[in-house]
Amino acid sequence: MEKDISQAVIRRMPRYYRYLGELLDAGVERISSNELSAQMKVTASQIRQDLNNFGGFGQQGYGYNVRFLYEEIGKILGLDKQYHIIVIGAGNLGQALANYVKFEKRGFIITGLFDVNPALKGLSVRGIPVRMLEELPEFVKNNKIDIAALTMPKESASQVANQVVELGINAIWNFAHLDLELPPHVVVENVHLSDSLMQLSYNIVKREQHAKRQS
Amino acid sequence: MEKDISQAVIRRMPRYYRYLGELLDAGVERISSNELSAQMKVTASQIRQDLNNFGGFGQQGYGYNVRFLYEEIGKILGLDKQYHIIVIGAGNLGQALANYVKFEKRGFIITGLFDVNPALKGLSVRGIPVRMLEELPEFVKNNKIDIAALTMPKESASQVANQVVELGINAIWNFAHLDLELPPHVVVENVHLSDSLMQLSYNIVKREQHAKRQS
Repeated sequence: MEKDISQAVIRRMPRYYRYLGELLDAGVERISSNELSAQMKVTASQIRQDLNNFGGFGQQGYGYNVRFLYEEIGKILGLDKQYHIIVIGAGNLGQALANYVKFEKRGFIITGLFDVNPALKGLSVRGIPVRMLEELPEFVKNNKIDIAALTMPKESASQVANQVVELGINAIWNFAHLDLELPPHVVVENVHLSDSLMQLSYNIVKREQHAKRQS
Repeated sequence: MEKDISQAVIRRMPRYYRYLGELLDAGVERISSNELSAQMKVTASQIRQDLNNFGGFGQQGYGYNVRFLYEEIGKILGLDKQYHIIVIGAGNLGQALANYVKFEKRGFIITGLFDVNPALKGLSVRGIPVRMLEELPEFVKNNKIDIAALTMPKESASQVANQVVELGINAIWNFAHLDLELPPHVVVENVHLSDSLMQLSYNIVKREQHAKRQS
């Protein structure tokens, strides 16, 4: 796969994966792009265009083989591999992540849970003990860790991110509400809950303005 | 504001708001679009284009007045109003949302916390008691609720979403891993954590492929 594919296309792929997984669970073996389009509420041409980025997968007059397409998209998304995750910040959000059994089904295995709060020492979530942050270097040396999820407060996030990268972890799932400045080889995926809430309030205001103009 | 502004522009506005808030906290009174561009790592022309959607705000040779721009973007995002939120699903994620003090500073006030699990009855998070889901209709009748955050499992999310909409709540912050089918007047903002994790694994695989080609 030499071509560079836009992040907009990539953002849509997990959704295809989800719908195809549901079709598979429902016993559907094949589906036309028109049917898939109706279910997912995107145009059939969008679906064809998106999938053509990766070489197509459809057959004229047959549509898509659901299992094949599901597995191929899984490979594109790297879901044919396993990833070991540590979560730094064992508060409610960190515990929520550690509790998601479904991540594990996709190959994302939460291996460690860290915090600076001594009160959390001895707590364990789904069998994962909360460790103190000072144990992190030793832990990372002894365990192959692929991803660090940062769920601690914004104030300490950039320092911890730097430490994690120095320890050789090159992928960060960042929930702290700031943009991390890290070397270019580090992959960062942000989940900014406040930003999401502000988009919601924007759309609420817009809807109210629209309703006022209509009346 | 009669013009329809693309969601891509809207998605960038909370980030402007965040940077301007930090500048304000640091005592910065005005900033050129070039300086803002350097800090935010987007081009100055992107900034000008984005802000021109709302009428500009900059002055030739002066740049931007930080407080004015911060407040204007706040108004655009609807942050000059208050929103009352109920969280349905009082597990770790619901409790994490209820614990975010920063939401309240932005005008998002968590007013109620609901669950179906009787074991959570009596629990309270930041003074907000967990109520049983059957109390929801009565609660919504007696309190003006603007937003329902759905943090329960996928399996019950679509039924609860319908109930919430029937009770007159027209904005949903959806953390359940499915696309809700709701009437067009309902505003929905999704936070799909699994999708975000898959984007991360895609970018990890892409980086590794890239590194291989380089070596």
